[in-house]
Amino acid sequence: MRFFSDNAAPVHPAVFAAMAAADAVDAAYDGDALSRALDARFSALFGRDVAVLWVATGTAANALALAALVPPHGATICHRDAHVQNDEGGAPEFFTHGAKLLLADGPGAKLTPDAVAAVADAIPADVHRVQPHALSITNATEYGTVYTPAEVAALAALARARGWGVHMDGARFANAVATLGCAPAALVDGVDVLSFGFVKNGGLSAEALVFFRADLADATRRRRKRSGHLLSKGRYLAAQLHAMLDGGLWLDNARAANAQARTLAAAAGGRLLHPVEANELFLRVDPDEATRLRAAGFGFYDWAPGEIRLVTHWASPPDEVAALADAIARL
Amino acid sequence: MRFFSDNAAPVHPAVFAAMAAADAVDAAYDGDALSRALDARFSALFGRDVAVLWVATGTAANALALAALVPPHGATICHRDAHVQNDEGGAPEFFTHGAKLLLADGPGAKLTPDAVAAVADAIPADVHRVQPHALSITNATEYGTVYTPAEVAALAALARARGWGVHMDGARFANAVATLGCAPAALVDGVDVLSFGFVKNGGLSAEALVFFRADLADATRRRRKRSGHLLSKGRYLAAQLHAMLDGGLWLDNARAANAQARTLAAAAGGRLLHPVEANELFLRVDPDEATRLRAAGFGFYDWAPGEIRLVTHWASPPDEVAALADAIARL
Amino acid sequence: MRFFSDNAAPVHPAVFAAMAAADAVDAAYDGDALSRALDARFSALFGRDVAVLWVATGTAANALALAALVPPHGATICHRDAHVQNDEGGAPEFFTHGAKLLLADGPGAKLTPDAVAAVADAIPADVHRVQPHALSITNATEYGTVYTPAEVAALAALARARGWGVHMDGARFANAVATLGCAPAALVDGVDVLSFGFVKNGGLSAEALVFFRADLADATRRRRKRSGHLLSKGRYLAAQLHAMLDGGLWLDNARAANAQARTLAAAAGGRLLHPVEANELFLRVDPDEATRLRAAGFGFYDWAPGEIRLVTHWASPPDEVAALADAIARL
Amino acid sequence: MRFFSDNAAPVHPAVFAAMAAADAVDAAYDGDALSRALDARFSALFGRDVAVLWVATGTAANALALAALVPPHGATICHRDAHVQNDEGGAPEFFTHGAKLLLADGPGAKLTPDAVAAVADAIPADVHRVQPHALSITNATEYGTVYTPAEVAALAALARARGWGVHMDGARFANAVATLGCAPAALVDGVDVLSFGFVKNGGLSAEALVFFRADLADATRRRRKRSGHLLSKGRYLAAQLHAMLDGGLWLDNARAANAQARTLAAAAGGRLLHPVEANELFLRVDPDEATRLRAAGFGFYDWAPGEIRLVTHWASPPDEVAALADAIARL
Repeated sequence: MRFFSDNAAPVHPAVFAAMAAADAVDAAYDGDALSRALDARFSALFGRDVAVLWVATGTAANALALAALVPPHGATICHRDAHVQNDEGGAPEFFTHGAKLLLADGPGAKLTPDAVAAVADAIPADVHRVQPHALSITNATEYGTVYTPAEVAALAALARARGWGVHMDGARFANAVATLGCAPAALVDGVDVLSFGFVKNGGLSAEALVFFRADLADATRRRRKRSGHLLSKGRYLAAQLHAMLDGGLWLDNARAANAQARTLAAAAGGRLLHPVEANELFLRVDPDEATRLRAAGFGFYDWAPGEIRLVTHWASPPDEVAALADAIARL
Repeated sequence: MRFFSDNAAPVHPAVFAAMAAADAVDAAYDGDALSRALDARFSALFGRDVAVLWVATGTAANALALAALVPPHGATICHRDAHVQNDEGGAPEFFTHGAKLLLADGPGAKLTPDAVAAVADAIPADVHRVQPHALSITNATEYGTVYTPAEVAALAALARARGWGVHMDGARFANAVATLGCAPAALVDGVDVLSFGFVKNGGLSAEALVFFRADLADATRRRRKRSGHLLSKGRYLAAQLHAMLDGGLWLDNARAANAQARTLAAAAGGRLLHPVEANELFLRVDPDEATRLRAAGFGFYDWAPGEIRLVTHWASPPDEVAALADAIARL
Repeated sequence: MRFFSDNAAPVHPAVFAAMAAADAVDAAYDGDALSRALDARFSALFGRDVAVLWVATGTAANALALAALVPPHGATICHRDAHVQNDEGGAPEFFTHGAKLLLADGPGAKLTPDAVAAVADAIPADVHRVQPHALSITNATEYGTVYTPAEVAALAALARARGWGVHMDGARFANAVATLGCAPAALVDGVDVLSFGFVKNGGLSAEALVFFRADLADATRRRRKRSGHLLSKGRYLAAQLHAMLDGGLWLDNARAANAQARTLAAAAGGRLLHPVEANELFLRVDPDEATRLRAAGFGFYDWAPGEIRLVTHWASPPDEVAALADAIARL
Repeated sequence: MRFFSDNAAPVHPAVFAAMAAADAVDAAYDGDALSRALDARFSALFGRDVAVLWVATGTAANALALAALVPPHGATICHRDAHVQNDEGGAPEFFTHGAKLLLADGPGAKLTPDAVAAVADAIPADVHRVQPHALSITNATEYGTVYTPAEVAALAALARARGWGVHMDGARFANAVATLGCAPAALVDGVDVLSFGFVKNGGLSAEALVFFRADLADATRRRRKRSGHLLSKGRYLAAQLHAMLDGGLWLDNARAANAQARTLAAAAGGRLLHPVEANELFLRVDPDEATRLRAAGFGFYDWAPGEIRLVTHWASPPDEVAALADAIARL
């Protein structure tokens, strides 16, 4: 009974079916009909013109996004706990040729305009200091909390006022939208680039890098190639994205994952370290308790001393979730 | 009837089946059983200990290989027509942080020890000149010719004598092995890193980066992550590689592609610009003739004024190949 | 009466004289006799074999040092207030091709083994996290405090135990040695590379990059060229270094600067934010008081709200220092 | 009697005097009056508004220029024998983060529009191929020949028509102007950035990076800092440039060097491999003859089998030049 990560979830059958169907398509790279249809498909979803590139990983999506917004001599402001800072092996620095990440604080891995301004205001504009060029936020956050549309808009307005770009790491964007019940477009007001995740949500190897400023897409196509991310059989990635959008599968899957997390949250009660607003839970669990949970067959990661992380996904077996909820309640 | 590229070939059913079966495997990144079995699997194939990483593209494989062999202030010697120089959007320079490619000549995109030595000997050892640190050769080459085991060994010996690493771009390594009828190991004598291609040969999105010097693999694992190439659902890539090795599928597919190319070569006769030793043909065809072939329903790329390229693949329909052979013969 | 920075101090006459004398020397780059004598000269100073490269700026020295110790996918641990983090426009990231700086805390811009270990211990060894490869400390520090030989050795021992390299930013190394009264060698126990500063201390444009591990110097010579730092008339830089070492001028100048700082410190009393152990003072001074000091003709930088920085140098006019001391005492 | 390189020439006394006078100036970096006066000074020289940054080496000047014109995923077209390709240790690739240099041919290290167009026209615009973004030419060239104003303008017009930037490596710009007798402005028609060399021409450590498009200067100021090239005592570099412009010293020195070269050229006659239009000579001299010249006390570099290079400079002793001319004539 594995609650390690949504990264390890199976692939949705509809995704496999779409890939098999792509066998009939036969142009290489992103010249095929499925890839070429992505702009229109996501433009319809967001109700505005967007340019969309498939990429195989969220790390590549995030790093390409930052490279589109920040010159090598610039910086991105992000949360101290951001995935781009901690979990991508230095990919942002690689793709941006060494631009810095400047770290701001906030509970639940969420930034506020005040926290961001405090970081920026401490930096004189001279050449000795690296200057911010972008703000990167994660929604849902690394701690399973969610920025509301108003919170995103406020941060984006601050960035805009200072001439920065705005990136949203949406590895779990679907989970955020599912929780908020808003239109996708409502959650990206002022965002320039969205890493729209599908792999954790039933996909196999396709994320969508969504540019709300189409002028940023052209150089990114070159950076995608230059970083080895232009797969020759791109049609099988495009097919995954189409399958996920068909009939709102992306949202159904996210709702399922979130529901399972809420079940666990209800059992966890006062052990919760952060509000459960997506599909991740962070619990106060002492080492002895963790040992007992593991002995009962549950797999999960320790997060910090006395803390564990649980992650549900679109295909988490309800009986396993129920069993874990029960085990937590009985700790 | 498309003869543009083996990149656009369909995925072999066995590959899809293996991917579907990987749904039952559930560790993320490369921690799953399929990924962890790759070293042993390829070690058996080559009859010696190798370390193997899956990557999604040949460009990533090549660029990671060069980054393992060449420091940013160094250079790689390769053929003027090498894929790494011309067709990867600058990926080698990106992954190596700006190491240079030094270009040597030779017919059929093949290098000789003399040609390589001539480039190297012209470079004084001082700090003003960028020094060679690696040799990169492609087998089968960009012009569909093949290095024999003896030719590879002679080049590798030269490199070794000068303290350089040796990389082989094996995007069509299978086609070369199929043509030569040798053991795979015989074709990599002295090679440090092989980009072993599967995508053009029936795979979907998995190439094998094979390190014959295992000490080079560790830092490469970090570079793979840092470049966004550590897919979270890596088991589906590992599954592809296993499927291709099962029962020698990789070799069967390459033999099929090569046989189709030979059929076309027989029809092309004196039009051939290079010996046909793999699955690519370069033909002398004037613009009027090219127009007639296209009018007859055949798709292919112009390569240079008066030259066209034809590529066959594992699934090239025999009737289409026969039709094209006939059309060429009647030009 | 300027107390902005020792960067703006004049050049010592002996330095100019040595440069003029170098006119008679005539090999380019670092092939001249003066440049070639640096290894021996500094080896004598430190009582052990060192390899020395001149560079024109402390920023280049620091960044080349880090590039010698840290791969692009690695990290350096340094103090949150380190010059490499805050004041070099991203040079460390440029020269290391994007290696990260991981920030640790400590009063007076000084690190302790505990603070460093706390940063490192929070980083799992997996490929998702960038791993530390070096420790960088500054002596004298950015707040004008000094690491003792024992403190340096303890930090270096920690680094060594974890397999990291050790860099010392010694932009004001002379001031630290002057304060401690120790042998230079005593202050670099366990250090791999020292950026030995002379420009703030009477030089014009030459710092010494001192490698206590000579194996690191060769690639650095290539990086120096590649970064445009191999001046063609290097003999004029080497001449500066020789002049600074002649008769212990470097130490005399540092003692003079430190003495002036102590004069100011005595006047500042309880306003001091950090111990004055070199030639920088940080004072608690409210805006009104700062205005009065400026009105009296004293120039200096605001450092933070309610804080000012004062810097003395080898040629600070004693009467100006006395006047400032008096003005501070009367605030 | 050394004819190795103008790099090894002494510093002109007026340059030293100006540096000594800069002792009275006391703002750090480029905030001093001398540095701030450079824009106006060079604007007057060129008769149009320019932005000027001092840098310590020609390599840094060239690499910063290319970084201002070419993105990491782009390329510069230059001559196969260009200094940026062969003699800067990979600095262009370092500063541009791996942009490629694409090599064109032409006698005397000179490019023609046809040669440049041939390189560019062979590159499809797709993402697989790195695209040209700039043209870099050297005047005087690496073989001591000179582009006329009309030749520069024709190349620049081609570049402009294709949307590329134009860089001129003017390490010996003074020698070219001296030979042509034209206004400096006449020789930079269509040029965006000029590396204006002074170090080979009597300076010590200051080159002028001249931006004819001021919008390129701002990011370059950050790159200069980030590459460690913002010297803290920049006033001593600015002083050198002012001294070189005072009274046309730069042109006097270049005329002197050129005159000496012409003396040698007259003696060399049919041995000359290239026209002597600046201060470098390339002579056909067999090994035995070279040995005899060296035995007679003349120092110089072998350039290629059977070829030697001789370089004169502003301070080449006329008697030594006469002696060498005589020795050559008597070979």
